[in-house]
This record gives sequence, C-alpha cells and structure tokens, in this order.
Amino acid sequence: MTPQEIMEMLHAEIKAEKNLGAVASYIPELGKVNPDYFGIYLTSIDGQRLSAGDWDVPFSIQSIAKVLSLSFAFNLKGDAIWERVGVEPSGSPFNSLVQLEFESGIPRNPFINAGAIVICDILCSELENPKEELLSFIRRVANNPNINYNPIIAASEASEGYRNFALINFIRSFGNIHNEVEEVIDLYFHLSSVMMTCKELSETFLFLANAGIQVDTGERILGVSMTKRINAVMQTCGFYDEAGEFAFRVGLPGKSGVGGGIAAILPNDYAIAVWSPRLNTKGNSYRGMKFLEQFTTLTELSIF
Amino acid sequence: MTPQEIMEMLHAEIKAEKNLGAVASYIPELGKVNPDYFGIYLTSIDGQRLSAGDWDVPFSIQSIAKVLSLSFAFNLKGDAIWERVGVEPSGSPFNSLVQLEFESGIPRNPFINAGAIVICDILCSELENPKEELLSFIRRVANNPNINYNPIIAASEASEGYRNFALINFIRSFGNIHNEVEEVIDLYFHLSSVMMTCKELSETFLFLANAGIQVDTGERILGVSMTKRINAVMQTCGFYDEAGEFAFRVGLPGKSGVGGGIAAILPNDYAIAVWSPRLNTKGNSYRGMKFLEQFTTLTELSIF
Amino acid sequence: MTPQEIMEMLHAEIKAEKNLGAVASYIPELGKVNPDYFGIYLTSIDGQRLSAGDWDVPFSIQSIAKVLSLSFAFNLKGDAIWERVGVEPSGSPFNSLVQLEFESGIPRNPFINAGAIVICDILCSELENPKEELLSFIRRVANNPNINYNPIIAASEASEGYRNFALINFIRSFGNIHNEVEEVIDLYFHLSSVMMTCKELSETFLFLANAGIQVDTGERILGVSMTKRINAVMQTCGFYDEAGEFAFRVGLPGKSGVGGGIAAILPNDYAIAVWSPRLNTKGNSYRGMKFLEQFTTLTELSIF
Amino acid sequence: MTPQEIMEMLHAEIKAEKNLGAVASYIPELGKVNPDYFGIYLTSIDGQRLSAGDWDVPFSIQSIAKVLSLSFAFNLKGDAIWERVGVEPSGSPFNSLVQLEFESGIPRNPFINAGAIVICDILCSELENPKEELLSFIRRVANNPNINYNPIIAASEASEGYRNFALINFIRSFGNIHNEVEEVIDLYFHLSSVMMTCKELSETFLFLANAGIQVDTGERILGVSMTKRINAVMQTCGFYDEAGEFAFRVGLPGKSGVGGGIAAILPNDYAIAVWSPRLNTKGNSYRGMKFLEQFTTLTELSIF
Repeated sequence: MTPQEIMEMLHAEIKAEKNLGAVASYIPELGKVNPDYFGIYLTSIDGQRLSAGDWDVPFSIQSIAKVLSLSFAFNLKGDAIWERVGVEPSGSPFNSLVQLEFESGIPRNPFINAGAIVICDILCSELENPKEELLSFIRRVANNPNINYNPIIAASEASEGYRNFALINFIRSFGNIHNEVEEVIDLYFHLSSVMMTCKELSETFLFLANAGIQVDTGERILGVSMTKRINAVMQTCGFYDEAGEFAFRVGLPGKSGVGGGIAAILPNDYAIAVWSPRLNTKGNSYRGMKFLEQFTTLTELSIF
Repeated sequence: MTPQEIMEMLHAEIKAEKNLGAVASYIPELGKVNPDYFGIYLTSIDGQRLSAGDWDVPFSIQSIAKVLSLSFAFNLKGDAIWERVGVEPSGSPFNSLVQLEFESGIPRNPFINAGAIVICDILCSELENPKEELLSFIRRVANNPNINYNPIIAASEASEGYRNFALINFIRSFGNIHNEVEEVIDLYFHLSSVMMTCKELSETFLFLANAGIQVDTGERILGVSMTKRINAVMQTCGFYDEAGEFAFRVGLPGKSGVGGGIAAILPNDYAIAVWSPRLNTKGNSYRGMKFLEQFTTLTELSIF
Repeated sequence: MTPQEIMEMLHAEIKAEKNLGAVASYIPELGKVNPDYFGIYLTSIDGQRLSAGDWDVPFSIQSIAKVLSLSFAFNLKGDAIWERVGVEPSGSPFNSLVQLEFESGIPRNPFINAGAIVICDILCSELENPKEELLSFIRRVANNPNINYNPIIAASEASEGYRNFALINFIRSFGNIHNEVEEVIDLYFHLSSVMMTCKELSETFLFLANAGIQVDTGERILGVSMTKRINAVMQTCGFYDEAGEFAFRVGLPGKSGVGGGIAAILPNDYAIAVWSPRLNTKGNSYRGMKFLEQFTTLTELSIF
Repeated sequence: MTPQEIMEMLHAEIKAEKNLGAVASYIPELGKVNPDYFGIYLTSIDGQRLSAGDWDVPFSIQSIAKVLSLSFAFNLKGDAIWERVGVEPSGSPFNSLVQLEFESGIPRNPFINAGAIVICDILCSELENPKEELLSFIRRVANNPNINYNPIIAASEASEGYRNFALINFIRSFGNIHNEVEEVIDLYFHLSSVMMTCKELSETFLFLANAGIQVDTGERILGVSMTKRINAVMQTCGFYDEAGEFAFRVGLPGKSGVGGGIAAILPNDYAIAVWSPRLNTKGNSYRGMKFLEQFTTLTELSIF
C-alpha cells in the first residue's frame, strides 16, 4: 500500500469506530464544533501531499500555536529564554502550581500555560506591536497571509481565563513577568485563538522537519541547532501528561491542542497534522492519537 | 576531523577543565571511586570502535541496568507490563511519593526506583531463579560471560536502602507487588550492582540501536517495535529530572546512573558509553553530559 | 434536665436516626464488629458517673492509645521528644509523605501514624521490655489490671501493615528511627490493639482532666504543665483532618480511633468516652461526633 | 507577684535579651517600623488593665483583622459561610495552592489569605458599602471611633499583591468568588491595613472573652455559640503553621499578624495584645510568642 492508501484506510477504519472522549468546552466557542470532524494532512519536504477527511476545515489550533511563539522568541532572544523557562516535562497536572512555587516562578517548559505566558512576556518586551508581529511571523512560517486570530475565541478565553490570570499573577510575584499583566495575557489569549486547517497546519510545521527552512520560500526561520532543540522540547513536553505515551506509541516530536488538533514531524521528511475534536482523558485528540500510532507503525517511520 | 579525533579532542578539553560536581556517596562503596576517571567508548553497528580515556575500567552501572531488566521483562510479558508501570516522565523528585499515591501505586515509568522495583517483581513472578536468569540475560545481551553483580555493592545498597524498603512496602500496600518484599528487593539491589567498563556498556546497548538484534551473535533480543519503545522510554525518562535537558542538548535516547555512567544510542548507527563519577545537581555525570552535548553537536548526529 | 438525662435523651435520639458511614475494614478483625453498638460513659473528677447504651462492651481503641504512648514517652524523656516529632496539625492526608520529606523525617505530630511510630521508637530506646512496660503504664493510668492488647488484632495489623512498614523505613532513611524496624513496628501494632470499654476509656483519660493525677490512686502520672501540653496536642491534632471541626463543634481536647471510639476531656471536670463503629468520611465516629457536639451544646461545657 | 508585676518583669527580661527574627518587608511600609518596639496590654472583663512598654503606639494589625471580618460575616450570614470556607488548619504553606485545588476552591480556613479573601467576597455580597460598613463594625467592636484603615499600607499591599491577585483569580476559577475581583481585593487590602495600639487591640478582642458582648457598651456583637466557634478557629488556625506550637506553649485562642502583633483571649477572663515587629521563621512575633508563653506559665492561666 502507498502511504496515501494507508492514510485513507486508517481514516476510514477509525471513522467507523465509536468516537470516544469529550469535546473541550471550558470556553463556549470550542464546545460548538461538530465532534465528528476528522481531518489529516501530510506535507513532505520533497513535495508529497497526502490527505484524508476534513483536512480543509479551519479549527482552533489552541496550544499548538505555543510552538510558534516559542520559535519566534527563541529566534529573537536565543538561549537567554532558557533562563526564564525550563525544558523539563511537568509531570501530572495536580502539582503544576506547587511546582512553580518550588522552582521560584520558572515554568517547567514553554508548552505548559505558565511557560507559554512567560514566552508571551518575552515577546512583549522585544516587540513594538506584539500581536501584529507575532501574527506576521506565523504567516511567514506558514507562507500564508490568510492565517488569523479568531477574535471571538480570544474574547471567550479572556472571559473565562481566571486560572490564567491566577498563573500570570503568581509568576509575576516571583519577578518572572516584566510587562503589564493585561498586555501579556491579551497576547496569550490571541495566540491561543489562531485558526488553521490541517493543510495549513502541516505546511506551517514543515520548517521544523526541514532544519529550520521554510520549504516554499527557502527562508531560514530558525537555525539548525535551534530547530533540533524545539523538536526535542516537543518530544518531551508536547502532549501534557501523555508526552511519554506519545513518544512510546508514535515516536515523533509533536504538539497537541485542546481544539483536537495534533501537529507532528519526522525530521528530514515530513510534517503531519491531524484533527478530531473529541479528547481523551489526558486532553489529547482521541482519534488523532489513534491515527498517528497506527500510521507510524504501518509506515515504519518513527525517530527511534 | 574524524569522529575518533573529535572524541579525543573533546576528552582532552573536558579533562583539562575543572571537574565539578560530587561523587554519589549514599553507599560507601560508590564514594570510594577515583573521581577523575573519565572514559568513553563508542561501538557502531557497522563495526567501528572509538574510545578515549579510562574506557576499560569497570564501574558500577547502577540505574543504567534498569534498561536491561526492563528489556527482559518486556520480552517475557509483552505489553502486559504497562498495566503495572507507566511511561511518563516523573517530574521533579519532590513529589515522587505523592505521585505514587495519586496514581494508586502505579509508578510513572520503569526507570524511577519505584518502577524498577515493580519490574523486578514481574521478573520474580516469571522466573525460577530471578537473580541468575537476569544475569544470564545481561550476559547474552552483552555477548560477554564475564559481566557480574558486585556483591559488596549489593550488600551496601541493602544496608542503606531504607528508602527503597519504604517504596516497595508503599507499592505493596496498593497491591502492585506480588512477591515477597525481601526477594524482590534483593533482586533490585543486585541489579543495581552490575559492573561494566565503557566498552562493555556500549556493546551491551548496541542491540537497542540495531532494531533489537545482538550485532555479534545475530540473536534477536527484542522485537523491532519493542526496541523502538524502549528507546522512546529512555528518551523521555532516562535522566531523572534532566530528561528534557538531555533531549534538548544531546538528542539521543539514553540512560544514566549515579555511578557516573551514561549509555546512549543513535538508532541504526551506534551505542556510546561515557563514565565520569562526579554528578551534577540533577544526579547525572557532569563530564558525561558535557561530552555528549559537544560530541553530538560536532558530529551533527542526533535524532532530531 | 440533668446531664444524665441529657445523655440518655441524645443517645436515644441519635440511635433512632439512620446510622451513616462505614466500619473500618482495612484489617478483617475491625470489620467484624456490630456496626450498631453505641456506648457512652462519662467519669468526673468529683466522682460522678454517667452512662448510656453499650458502655460495657470492649472495643479496639486503636489510635486513641497514641495519647497513652505519648504520655509515657513524655514522662520518660521530657521535652527531648519534641526534637523528634512536632506538634502541628498535619493538614489533609494526601500530602503526609511529602510533608515528611520536606520536614526531613520529623513527623508533624505524635498522633499521625508516622509520629506514633517515632514515639514507639523512643519507648524502645528507653525500656527494657517495651511491650510489657507500656502495658503496665496503661494499666496504672487506667487503675485496671485487666486492660490488655488483643493479639489477634495486633497480628492482623502486622499482616496488612505495608503502609506502616513503608512509613517506618522512610523515617529511618532520615535517621529518625534508632531501633530495629521490626521491634518498633511490633510495639506500634500492639499499641494499636489495646481493648477497652467506654467506662474503662473514660477512667483512663480522667488524669488528663485532673492536672495529671490518677483520681482513684492519687498517683501523679504526668506533671501539670506536661498534662496541659498533651491536652493542647489533642485539641489541635486529635482528629485527623477534622481537628478543626471538632474544636469548632465540640470544643474539647480529644482523640479518636478508627475502631469508632472517641475520648475527650473537659479540664478540671470530666473525661468522656463514646463508641460507635461507623466512621464519617474523615475517619471519625459518625454517631460519636454527633453526640459530643450536641452534648457540649446542651450542657454548655466547652473550653472556649 | 501580681500579674502586673509579672508582666513588667517579663517585659524587662525579654527586652534585655537579643531581639531575633526579621521585620516583615514584603511591603515597604511594614519594613520602616522600629524593630525594637515592644508593647503589651491586657484588658479583663472585670475591668483590670495591665500594660507594659510601647502599648500606646499604633501598628498595622494585618491578619489579626481577619478575626474581625470573620466575626462580621458570621454575624451577617450565620453558618452559611462554612459552605465557602473550612475550619481546618492548613498545614505547611508549601502546599496551600495545591490544597486549594484539591478542595475545589474552598479555602481550608478563614485565616489563610485565601479564606479571608472569600470572607471579603461574602461581605461584598452582603453590604452596600463594604469598606465603610466593615470599618463601622470594627469601631463598634472596639468601642472606638478613631480606628482607621491606613491608606498608604492598603496601597502598598495592592502594588505588591500579585500573589493575592493569583489567589483570588484561582478561587474564582472554581466559582467561589461572586463579586468583581477588584472590589473584593480592594476590601481585602484595606482590611489588612487597619491600625491599632496594643490597648485598642486588647479592647477590641475582649468581646471574644466575654461570650460575644462588648464589655463597655453591653452590646451583643455575636451570639454565645458563634463566639465559642470563632475562638475554636483561632485556637486551631490562628498562627499559620505554628498554631499547634502556640496551643502547646501558650494555650490560648489567638491570632497573629505579620506586623508583629498578637491578640489572644482567655474565655471569661481577659484579652491580651502583644506587639514586637521581629518575626520568627514561622511568621509570628518572636518576642510576642516568648512573652505569652512565659506569662501564661507564670500566671497558670491557659484553657487546658
């Protein structure tokens, strides 16, 4: 079977099975999505494109965008960012706040909310117009001027974001937030609201499989070594408390979001995006995890 | 420069720098080692052998042996072992016991002490003479009949092992230990006492770079998929609370021990062992981490 | 109404209501008791004796005995015991082990298991025959030569006591256990197995209401200041994670046990013992708490 | 010696010893106070007044005021307040946030910051002009129209209060804050800024020793049973992580503040206020604790 046939077969098989898990509903906008959407898109460095299902429906990529804000900040400030955020997995969520306390306000990694907020603070310090410039960066990486924030989702996040307000104030009490709380959190809520289709998401992540170079434009987004490091952080921290499980079953660096999206890459080969809104108990797409496990097993492609 | 030249240069450079950190001394035997030993050995699938420094001095591989007990148990029982131990990183050590409590006695992964003890319990259930059969397995993997436990170290562990007695009884209170506490802990203390040189250690780990096949004998030790999974667990959980940092800086699956050893592999390529007894604050070899970071940077070999 | 009438009325009223909660069953012996036993006995310094219900049925006083071992150790060693155990409430149980870790093996107070084990270790260091001498002390305090350990319960505790074995080994890893683990834990399991009736229990606790003097014999058991301090520790730590609630609702220093017993005192006035085996979710006697709250409200006697 | 002589002697003795500990300086205003101030004032129900040292210098009573806001809310809403805040001691502070998470946003007691913030939220729901009405209540209890907030301290708290902003947002994320964050936290910062002398503080707390009745005016501030309950909460939760120690050494219900003040009562007898700004490592006045321990020992007055 060709990879395209494998993809279609797995899509059909998984689609035929019961769709378990729950759609994230902590903000109303996320809860409104059709839970049975299921799209996949793979873009390879050498120009192959595979797809299945609802790959052209835009969805809220949520935390997947944290990889992009991290890439931007890493590019702007270099290794200095690692004085303000770590690269270790965070363990089970029950202790996230106490861990922050123990580690004096230095978040464990840039993909937990606390860490992404600190990255947004770094961007606020570096940029004149953080929201606009971050969006420009994302469009450049995606080679796509149509990528946008979703203002309804950003506002929805803000209206329910007491926990994130708690986090940012807590981090600030340790001196690890340098800008106004409102400005930083506004950037954070916008970051979380970025919309993409599976196709756009896989195209956006392709530079991470391509040693930091945007494939279409040839533009260097990140240095080789920085790109490897972002991939390493995705590997160990990209899936909440299921990063080990994802490495174990799928074997690719990647990042998931509560909107049900997952982006993953095989270095020097391809980027793949999967989207299905129902989440397993760890907060990762139920069908997305299933598909990626079987796809890497059948295609025998993993980094291990 | 050839890889051998790079290895020698880095060995000389790092040897010339101040040797920071402290030798583990929680058991007297470990504290007696010369802290300035510094050996490296690389064995590749295609027969290359690179070495530098004290690569032929035997040392206590300590927790590195947990990869071998895991491989043995995985081989014997298959995926059933994952019902009794997880594959997630454990986060900072301060909460290891409370995490065990939350997760009802299921250790986070097979490389923390709690998890390795459960793996030993599985071996005790499966084997007639666990200590002898585990040693035979290790010798088969190493293709070396001279590998042995160090009885003085095993006894030393037992005499100071109150924390491990605490752990095993705690896990047993959740029903996740099925054999006599004394038998399981005795196996665990022997496992921790295995002695190897850097050369032997790299030869032992080579099957993990070779899709599960012992290179010299051609014997299959583990299936392809099982081998990938062990590598994935090493990647996310192999370095205590520095697994993310190791992935970030080195980019290879590996495992460290408090004796100052580190074993790491590049899939389909090589296994490398480094040994230097002084440990950084996270419990990993100070010089070993330094060497591996620079070696993979200069040779441009990492999995990302 | 006289206090005796109040006691009988409340006993009858509460007996008529549904008996909620669950009998402790972590050891089989405890689970065998009739859950509807309900006894009360009050002994006052000036010779009054009030009683209701099953006050003459012996039951396992369990943790209530920790007050007696503490009194004995305090008497033998004075304030030196407070270097090895604290006097602070322990907060919710989920963090008991991590708290022990943070506080370097010094248990928060002598009434949590960890603390009572350290007290037993102190007794093992001070006494020739700890089990016999502790029993003699209890008989002297009770002025009753018939008080005894229950060997079946002691053995039952030992056979299921993995958590306590975990605790003692954990504490020993910090150097806060000085005797053989087996000897200390054996004393601890025997301490937990003491049997008394409500009558005997109230007589035993009366010295704590009487400034340290056994009322019948006139023997001084503890100094005035030491007695006040034991009462203060009962007040703040006597009811697991419900000590505040007990102070709030009842207002007397006291101690409960998982056998369903509660002993409490009003300084300079009386000692009271209540027993009813069903426990509320915090591990304290459901009917016992109810009775004591209403009894102190109606008799207007509390220390506040 | 008369109590007045004992008080003067202890004041002189302790004044002669080295004044250990550190003045709280998390807000600049607190750090400016002379660390050697040392005042004591005792007011008894039967009209005795004892004093020593700097009893007439106003200081920031800080958390001591939490007893007054609790009394006001308890009076307004009765037992309904206990659905939103508990009465259990909080254990060591390292886990305060995780405890709040476990207990779904219900603070352990009304004297930790989280609990006092919830009490302020209750007052905001009940009152038209919370700040003014709370001040009126305090003046009525003190029988003193000159008691006031210190606007400089209130502003200082607000400018540094990131942790409290974190707390209130975190609690709100569980639905246990019903009013605007800004309004509630403003009331909380004003509450913390109340100024009193030792004389005023002992007069203010006297109603808690007098079954709820203001001694001078005869006005009932709280019911008898409510008063007992407030005293019980002070006993178990009034001294941060040193409540057990205070009960153990002093034996009186009381409350301390980081300004170095302590107020305590002996039911049916007296209220006493001590002030000395240097704090021990647990956050309670170093000299205040010392004085109260020796004073209750020498006068043989404690509740136990």
